Amino acid sequence: MGGRAKAILIVCDGLGDRPIPELGGMTPLEAADTANLNRLADRGATGYMSTIGVGIRPGSDTAHLAILGYDPRKWYGGRGPIEAAGTGLKLRDGDLAFRGNLGTVADDGTIIDRRAGRISSSEPFVPVFDGKEIDGVKFIARAGTAYRVALVMRGEGLSAAISDVDPHEAGKPVSPVRPLDDSPEAARTARVLNEFLRVTRRELLEHPENAKRRAEGKLEANYLLLRGAGLHRALPSFEERYGLKAACVAGAGLYKGVAALAGMDVVEVEGATGLPDTDVRAKFERALSLLDEGYDFVFVHVKAADSLGEDGNYEGKRDFIKKISDAAAVLLEAPDDVLVALTADHTTPCALKTHSGDPVPLLFSGYGVIPDDVTEFGERNCRKGGCGRILGLDLMNEILNILGRAPLYGA
Amino acid sequence: MGGRAKAILIVCDGLGDRPIPELGGMTPLEAADTANLNRLADRGATGYMSTIGVGIRPGSDTAHLAILGYDPRKWYGGRGPIEAAGTGLKLRDGDLAFRGNLGTVADDGTIIDRRAGRISSSEPFVPVFDGKEIDGVKFIARAGTAYRVALVMRGEGLSAAISDVDPHEAGKPVSPVRPLDDSPEAARTARVLNEFLRVTRRELLEHPENAKRRAEGKLEANYLLLRGAGLHRALPSFEERYGLKAACVAGAGLYKGVAALAGMDVVEVEGATGLPDTDVRAKFERALSLLDEGYDFVFVHVKAADSLGEDGNYEGKRDFIKKISDAAAVLLEAPDDVLVALTADHTTPCALKTHSGDPVPLLFSGYGVIPDDVTEFGERNCRKGGCGRILGLDLMNEILNILGRAPLYGA
Repeated sequence: MGGRAKAILIVCDGLGDRPIPELGGMTPLEAADTANLNRLADRGATGYMSTIGVGIRPGSDTAHLAILGYDPRKWYGGRGPIEAAGTGLKLRDGDLAFRGNLGTVADDGTIIDRRAGRISSSEPFVPVFDGKEIDGVKFIARAGTAYRVALVMRGEGLSAAISDVDPHEAGKPVSPVRPLDDSPEAARTARVLNEFLRVTRRELLEHPENAKRRAEGKLEANYLLLRGAGLHRALPSFEERYGLKAACVAGAGLYKGVAALAGMDVVEVEGATGLPDTDVRAKFERALSLLDEGYDFVFVHVKAADSLGEDGNYEGKRDFIKKISDAAAVLLEAPDDVLVALTADHTTPCALKTHSGDPVPLLFSGYGVIPDDVTEFGERNCRKGGCGRILGLDLMNEILNILGRAPLYGA
Repeated sequence: MGGRAKAILIVCDGLGDRPIPELGGMTPLEAADTANLNRLADRGATGYMSTIGVGIRPGSDTAHLAILGYDPRKWYGGRGPIEAAGTGLKLRDGDLAFRGNLGTVADDGTIIDRRAGRISSSEPFVPVFDGKEIDGVKFIARAGTAYRVALVMRGEGLSAAISDVDPHEAGKPVSPVRPLDDSPEAARTARVLNEFLRVTRRELLEHPENAKRRAEGKLEANYLLLRGAGLHRALPSFEERYGLKAACVAGAGLYKGVAALAGMDVVEVEGATGLPDTDVRAKFERALSLLDEGYDFVFVHVKAADSLGEDGNYEGKRDFIKKISDAAAVLLEAPDDVLVALTADHTTPCALKTHSGDPVPLLFSGYGVIPDDVTEFGERNCRKGGCGRILGLDLMNEILNILGRAPLYGA
């Protein structure tokens, strides 16, 4: 009986791609030296997955909800709450959460830089936002990585039906927040938020850190550019739903956020940066040791293939995939009761420089897997694999089933 | 035009499996000598099927509902009504039905044996249960195979939200029935049922058959252990839904029950035992003769591969599959207007000794089938088959379509 088998789910963000002439018509994954991933595929079974639906182009947030078994059509309420949860902020139902950047805005309201000269930390500015209270609405802020700030509005009668502050493009003016429907809640939320932005803008302009930056010839962090407003609603607990005590190893906030909202323990790993320099091997090793320490399931997120795809950097993407494969040496040594599942949240073709709805390659290896004939891991080989094509929402069911831990439906 | 073509659907319970080291890494199906099934596959097309949903671990009841085209999410109301229908009992909407075992319970209420020493027939005891009336609720009982008894409560205001009598394990005490919600219906159902159990327990203890069993040193049949309470709701007629006059050939009660609920004629075949000694060939021959006698569709259920898988008996399972294949010689001789569909309700891996959500192999051969390249019937080959992966609820639509009898959707 396999009731105690365990699983690692590795999501390589944006892993899939399309054939690239400069790579001899291969994709970065097909062109990469992926000896260890091939070994996993050879021992295991492959398939392909549409994370949201066939031909649907997934966001990172919705794709991760689906992969972890939460139907985004039901549970997705905007990126804000997920990013906020990713900073460690404990959200309550009804909180209105945003993702934000510290930006540089001219006196006439035009955006000079959406990231305040890619300022390395928002920490010194967070006290400007955190703890403010306007008309009964409390503001809570946390620093994200670099220029990022998560902001939460807590109070009665808030609405996510408001326009973004961030115009998403330098040179454009910051817009006052507008209600997007006729509800009194949207009107109130916009009014309170505009007042908050007015007050904090003034404080940011006078902030000693900005005086320092001016003196150093750096761009000021003088505006909080907000977007992705979403009302928080608690996700059902991953552990209760699947009977798996779960942890997350990730570098970037969004993925920690999804995991935190699902009630997973978010484990920090030194060297996990979310960038191409990240220590993939350390993440895989930590995941295995977490299984050893009593977790049943570890979700590992590896970011950089996506970012490189968005840059159109197919050689960088190919080389980063080799780095993932090299690190996968430790997965080949995983104990017999461990299932390794490796896939992506979406495809990021270098030719498109953005997410696409192409199915993602999928690999199961280890405990409980019926091996198929596929011996090399790649987009096209996976289409011939023994798992066939599944949807993102099927993935957790497949994993539970392979582990022999699926509940019986019926009798 | 194939408007009058006919089909046999053979469900080999628990047919699929996972690779078994002792079978050289093959499954029992792959390791078995399946010359006739291979011939059917060679002539036909294969695929694989998740009967409930991808990765979902099916019960036998829910899987059969799905395979016959009844969405279990809509139509499944517990196993009791299906087992009761399988004894030939005609249910009415609102009947509360149970499956039951005759058990042996000590004076202090501890279960000594859940099957009263595997008593060979419950017939002599059924009159104790059948026809009782308590507080306006009428009790109807029918003998199932061996120690099994189906029980129905008929009356106003009954609820299935009550606890099982059967603790599912010897050594544990029989529990009084408890309401599982706050409704007056659940409270009333529990109260009436407890009174029924008290009265029938007394009669069983004084039953002459039990005096005889005591004298023979056998375990008494002195308690009715009930489980699987479900409110009956009539299924839409299979014949009306699909335009197929249908019959069922099965050995075990559950499968006869599903067929009876769908309005099929349940045909008894001598030698159909539901056990490894069953006469598979007689069942296949009878199915073919039923098509000859005016039926359009015969559902044949073959049980034993499942039971052998639950025992972890991979050699027995392999040998029973050979027996199925040997019997399939008669299917190779089926008339040209007959489609043979052969599949399973779920996988029962010997390694897990229970149902799993692994997809089941699927084979179409005969009338209307576009042959694929697969020439040997097995789990892994079916994954490369021309039918691809389907869901259980797709199966009847596929069959109707291959027969050229599908209704037009649109114009």
